[in-house]
Amino acid sequence: MVSQVRVAGVGMTPFGKSPERTAREMFGDAADEAFEDAGVDPDDVEEVFYGNFMGEFAEQQGHQGPLAASAAGVRAPATRIESACASSGVAVRMGVEKIRSGAADVVLVGGAERMTNLSTADGTAALAAAADALYEINAGVTFPGAYSLMANRYFEEYGGDREDLAHVAVKNHDHAVDNELAQFQMEITVEKVLDAVQVCSPFGLFDCSPMSDGGSAAVLVSEAFAEEHGLDASVAITGTGQASDSLALHDRESITGTPAAAEAAQMAYDDAGVTPDDVDVAEVHDCFTIAEVLAIESLGFFGKGEGITVAREGKTAIDGELPVNLSGGLKAKGHPVGATGGAQISEMTKMLRGDHVNSDAVSDATVGLTHNAGGTVASCVVNVLEVVE
Amino acid sequence: MVSQVRVAGVGMTPFGKSPERTAREMFGDAADEAFEDAGVDPDDVEEVFYGNFMGEFAEQQGHQGPLAASAAGVRAPATRIESACASSGVAVRMGVEKIRSGAADVVLVGGAERMTNLSTADGTAALAAAADALYEINAGVTFPGAYSLMANRYFEEYGGDREDLAHVAVKNHDHAVDNELAQFQMEITVEKVLDAVQVCSPFGLFDCSPMSDGGSAAVLVSEAFAEEHGLDASVAITGTGQASDSLALHDRESITGTPAAAEAAQMAYDDAGVTPDDVDVAEVHDCFTIAEVLAIESLGFFGKGEGITVAREGKTAIDGELPVNLSGGLKAKGHPVGATGGAQISEMTKMLRGDHVNSDAVSDATVGLTHNAGGTVASCVVNVLEVVE
Repeated sequence: MVSQVRVAGVGMTPFGKSPERTAREMFGDAADEAFEDAGVDPDDVEEVFYGNFMGEFAEQQGHQGPLAASAAGVRAPATRIESACASSGVAVRMGVEKIRSGAADVVLVGGAERMTNLSTADGTAALAAAADALYEINAGVTFPGAYSLMANRYFEEYGGDREDLAHVAVKNHDHAVDNELAQFQMEITVEKVLDAVQVCSPFGLFDCSPMSDGGSAAVLVSEAFAEEHGLDASVAITGTGQASDSLALHDRESITGTPAAAEAAQMAYDDAGVTPDDVDVAEVHDCFTIAEVLAIESLGFFGKGEGITVAREGKTAIDGELPVNLSGGLKAKGHPVGATGGAQISEMTKMLRGDHVNSDAVSDATVGLTHNAGGTVASCVVNVLEVVE
Repeated sequence: MVSQVRVAGVGMTPFGKSPERTAREMFGDAADEAFEDAGVDPDDVEEVFYGNFMGEFAEQQGHQGPLAASAAGVRAPATRIESACASSGVAVRMGVEKIRSGAADVVLVGGAERMTNLSTADGTAALAAAADALYEINAGVTFPGAYSLMANRYFEEYGGDREDLAHVAVKNHDHAVDNELAQFQMEITVEKVLDAVQVCSPFGLFDCSPMSDGGSAAVLVSEAFAEEHGLDASVAITGTGQASDSLALHDRESITGTPAAAEAAQMAYDDAGVTPDDVDVAEVHDCFTIAEVLAIESLGFFGKGEGITVAREGKTAIDGELPVNLSGGLKAKGHPVGATGGAQISEMTKMLRGDHVNSDAVSDATVGLTHNAGGTVASCVVNVLEVVE
């Protein structure tokens, strides 16, 4: 029987524009908060898994594992994990597996990304490194382009339209209104979404997550360590799954599904011993509005072709049957890509503990899920969190 | 009792200049060879850990985990590990830990790097991303500069001179003469090293490892899998260790030692239940001649201040008491940075199995060690390999 992995503490910087701050500084701040929240000393950390995607472009800085550890005041083996926008979700998963294996009792995970010091054009080019440089980027496809291909094909196969997608953005903005960590604490309307400047048909500006700066961290501990040190660690990561797909869309059988998400989810469900029906609240990777639709279908919450209407119907809203992206999601909370997976863990932990600004809406929740994707879901990691005491 | 991790098969491309080949292609070739060597089907792989350092600079390509898996014909969770020049050494370690935990029986590890499509200036700038961009690179320090600081300080504290270092390069070139995978299959002389164009005092051209292209791979399996499938996997990775240090030299107490290497080595020795005296043959990270000197001291093979003369004395030569870098090392075998740690495993496995061109020199060897470092040893991973049957 593997040891349960507890989330002892979490932290994240406010997401938004802070172009003058380095990734290391932001991760350091998030880690400080996580240690304080956990009541764990940095000296107890035995391993660091740190997610960062575009440090080479934004800061001419690779090799950020040791930098992140130093910023957190930790001296331990430290590795940078790069799975594009799923980087810190994978870092979390590695921390979980490390503790389960018995090789460590305390692991610091998370990530950081500095993006807004780049121009929009340079930032878009940097993000494009997550797609296939030879076969997609050379052909002129950037990420808004790739996801718009998926959206248009989805409309063709299953129906739906721009207005359905607009409801996803409106919902996630609604959720972020009171979240002080969110980049956009403002409501928007369907009309505003539909009238916004077009980025790449069918996407307008509000269908796209923003460029953001930020850091996130979590202190993961073994059950034994939590007990021994009397930690208040009532949330556990009970399931984790990861899968990969071809990087380029053209190599896939279909572009209206995200099989890597389905595989990662199945692995995580099996691992936790739960089903999609058991999930009370979810944070999913809504880098574009269509991405949330594809996610909630791949995760098994809604059937194929059914995800497109659920935001409009209110099913995934704060008062719906399955609240999705109560943090505001990538759309409104912001998307400093290397920090996003860790931030999902931070926000979900708070929701399940009852100290998130939107916790009251899910006060009976015992099972939460996070879904973090890289590229057009060529990488995906799913983690299941549960209240354990 | 953890399961022993066997090296079922290894592969690597010839190292050298192949600027037209992509990193994915080179890794695919290395993986194909490793599967063939192992007698394992790509479909059996449950996880891929892939090291790459400078893909963003050389190919505008991040997110190479899924690309590497596809190139190897594998559909499994795939993660790119980036620890600068220690990337694939860390990938190997992660594979070992994954199998030991019981979470997988078959893991594909390795890495690739494409470098020579960049100009020397651009390549040097890309490599510089492994140092502290804010405090070192902004001050004009590149890697030859950083290691030259370490060398000059070493001379000051412990003695030694350029000629001592030249013997390291001469030895490693000697070892590579018959290694068809090596970039430089040619002897050099101490005079040639001393007369070479200066790169950064005290280093001349031959004190520095080259820019190289190449890929490496290893198929790691659990003991149970090896037995069940009747694999000929006589080499095991019995110990692994990793440590980190401050990225910038100025944050360290001393720049004439590499404590991360000493910590990683101690962890690996304890893990394997061996001591430095048990090691029969070693592959160490000689990115610069001084780096080999610091490595063999940190690994406990020679005392502090004693490593500088051992190449001159022949102790680490092919017929010495402890042959170091029988492959030719980074200096003569070549150094496609993200592939180097995996290549050390490939070469060491062959040496211990008896099918390396230099195996005859270590025909009684049962314990081998690999030492792979990132930056100025801000990251270090040490793996211990043993003949088990």
